Amino acid sequence: MTTSFAPLANDTFLRACRRQATDYTPLWLMRQAGRYLPEYKATRAKAGSFMGLATNVQYATEVTLQPLERFPLDAAILFSDILTVPDAMGLGLSFAEGEGPRFAKTVRDEAAVQALAVPDMDKLRYVFDAVTSIRRALNGRVPLIGFSGSPWTLACYMVEGGGSDDYRLVKTLMYSRPDLMHRILAVNADAVAQYLNAQIDAGAQAVMVFDSWGGVLADGCFQQFSLAYTRRVLAQLKRQGVDGQDVPRIVFTKGGGIWLQDMKGLDCEVLGLDWTANLGQARAIVGDAKALQGNIDPNVLFAPPEMVAAQARAVLDSFGSPHTDRTTTGPTHIFNLGHGISQHTPPEHVAALVETVHGYSRSLRQR
Amino acid sequence: MTTSFAPLANDTFLRACRRQATDYTPLWLMRQAGRYLPEYKATRAKAGSFMGLATNVQYATEVTLQPLERFPLDAAILFSDILTVPDAMGLGLSFAEGEGPRFAKTVRDEAAVQALAVPDMDKLRYVFDAVTSIRRALNGRVPLIGFSGSPWTLACYMVEGGGSDDYRLVKTLMYSRPDLMHRILAVNADAVAQYLNAQIDAGAQAVMVFDSWGGVLADGCFQQFSLAYTRRVLAQLKRQGVDGQDVPRIVFTKGGGIWLQDMKGLDCEVLGLDWTANLGQARAIVGDAKALQGNIDPNVLFAPPEMVAAQARAVLDSFGSPHTDRTTTGPTHIFNLGHGISQHTPPEHVAALVETVHGYSRSLRQR
Repeated sequence: MTTSFAPLANDTFLRACRRQATDYTPLWLMRQAGRYLPEYKATRAKAGSFMGLATNVQYATEVTLQPLERFPLDAAILFSDILTVPDAMGLGLSFAEGEGPRFAKTVRDEAAVQALAVPDMDKLRYVFDAVTSIRRALNGRVPLIGFSGSPWTLACYMVEGGGSDDYRLVKTLMYSRPDLMHRILAVNADAVAQYLNAQIDAGAQAVMVFDSWGGVLADGCFQQFSLAYTRRVLAQLKRQGVDGQDVPRIVFTKGGGIWLQDMKGLDCEVLGLDWTANLGQARAIVGDAKALQGNIDPNVLFAPPEMVAAQARAVLDSFGSPHTDRTTTGPTHIFNLGHGISQHTPPEHVAALVETVHGYSRSLRQR
Repeated sequence: MTTSFAPLANDTFLRACRRQATDYTPLWLMRQAGRYLPEYKATRAKAGSFMGLATNVQYATEVTLQPLERFPLDAAILFSDILTVPDAMGLGLSFAEGEGPRFAKTVRDEAAVQALAVPDMDKLRYVFDAVTSIRRALNGRVPLIGFSGSPWTLACYMVEGGGSDDYRLVKTLMYSRPDLMHRILAVNADAVAQYLNAQIDAGAQAVMVFDSWGGVLADGCFQQFSLAYTRRVLAQLKRQGVDGQDVPRIVFTKGGGIWLQDMKGLDCEVLGLDWTANLGQARAIVGDAKALQGNIDPNVLFAPPEMVAAQARAVLDSFGSPHTDRTTTGPTHIFNLGHGISQHTPPEHVAALVETVHGYSRSLRQR
């Protein structure tokens, strides 16, 4: 089912995921292919809609590669949406212009919950085809990251029917009928695992679980309704990609910095952090058995380039001394934003960020 | 300027603030006077608008006391808005129906920042008059809490001009022109201190600083742009109320659980926590020199009463053993929500919460 892919020219990101020493701190940006790039807007205009863009292999490949043409980023990430899985479950995903995602059907009562099932992965074929197409188009330039929303994050949208600012409906279901919530999450976890495994089979070289809304949960509920199901996903993931290489697994919980003690034991290689966490303190809690990814505030990118550079240096410094011994594993840092890049970001500020991270992190290793 | 007030019949809340043993865990609810109560909606309809309600001493007194008529809460909190101070600075606060607050003028450039000044407290006379009126109306039933938004939280609204979901404008100013942001925050801090001191002079028996948006800041920025100015407020506060009693100071930072190590040193008596924190772990970090207030998820109140009761017991249990030795101070807990109560809350679920907290916390002390 797979063909061989070109050998990897820049493996800095994968080395850092494996806690191997690198010459500099690799970086990529959450939502790096997106509306802040005029070329993205041009492709999206051709596609007609967001889902038109995400479901067309050629367009998805095109926009995934666009940021790499501008900036020497160290990884590519599949262009897709976190809600493809519930869409394949039959909930009917759409994006109204200028608004967030909407589902035609919601999952709020016992009948709707009972009707849920892991979708036929054939309905997500467009995603796996995009993965293979992007990996080919990358031609070994940098590794390709596949991804999915976490079971809890998917459940938020499935119950609310779209975005929410108070999570009232999903939390009402969780607090009133925890049994139904556990059933949704179990189906989601198994679906997410199959989905990520199919991405791995299609050529993904690392996978990331976005627990975008884990941070809205109360202590206790986070562990029970988010973390437990992320764990269920991780336990089912393939450990080897199509080229026989191991596939690092990244878990990112926005607002999860308060629960690092709980996340420390997750069976994954990398923990992603948002900007509220201090990387040095996180490292002290998590220990050196995991790489850390993050965590500059995306709003930093609205400041002038010299301020962007200063903040980027501060984030690199907060991680502490980088690991440089190539004979062993040790603490590693993958630079990223603490959340997706804003559509209002000036691209030239991104250039300043990338240049600073590469240059300054290289100089830190020569001290 | 003040008259004497009736002696306090129920001092459980103030005792807990002072870390003195109490027979049960006191509770009050953030935004306890609000739209979930039909009697509140009736008064608001008479007042015509939210600001009409907040600026009318009689109406403000009426709605402050409404929740106490329904539930045996252990404290009253002044009915007002966190944005009265920037309104008095001349920014022109209004509330459009069904929307959040809006300022007619925003503070986004050097000229607007330079024009800012601590407002004449006479412009806030309606607030201080309400405090005195409420304290009289309470007639010693429970203590009255005064409050203000934190300097950073006020700045968010002053720069954004209203609510925001990404804090882009205020963070752009902060990252681009930290000098201007520091100037806004210094003015805000001095204004907030004068405002709270005037509430204390008018009869407030405790004061609370709501740092509702501190949690959106990056690590490092929180300490520099939020916490430092909360500290500046605290340092200026009067320590004695009109009746010669000490006035406990409560600081609540939504999303601040990750920074408890930094907040531990604040010169205040009580730290408020949102639902993401574990009270037992917070107690271990903060130590027993401060009381803790919080922290049930307000969304729990949408579940049936028996589920509300179970969650309330879990929050009480998470704090750990209550202090019972009346000869000394020790760890104390003030029960509250982790954020304001939702307008959609069924009042009978609030009754279940109050009953459980009082009953179960009493039983915990008899073990």
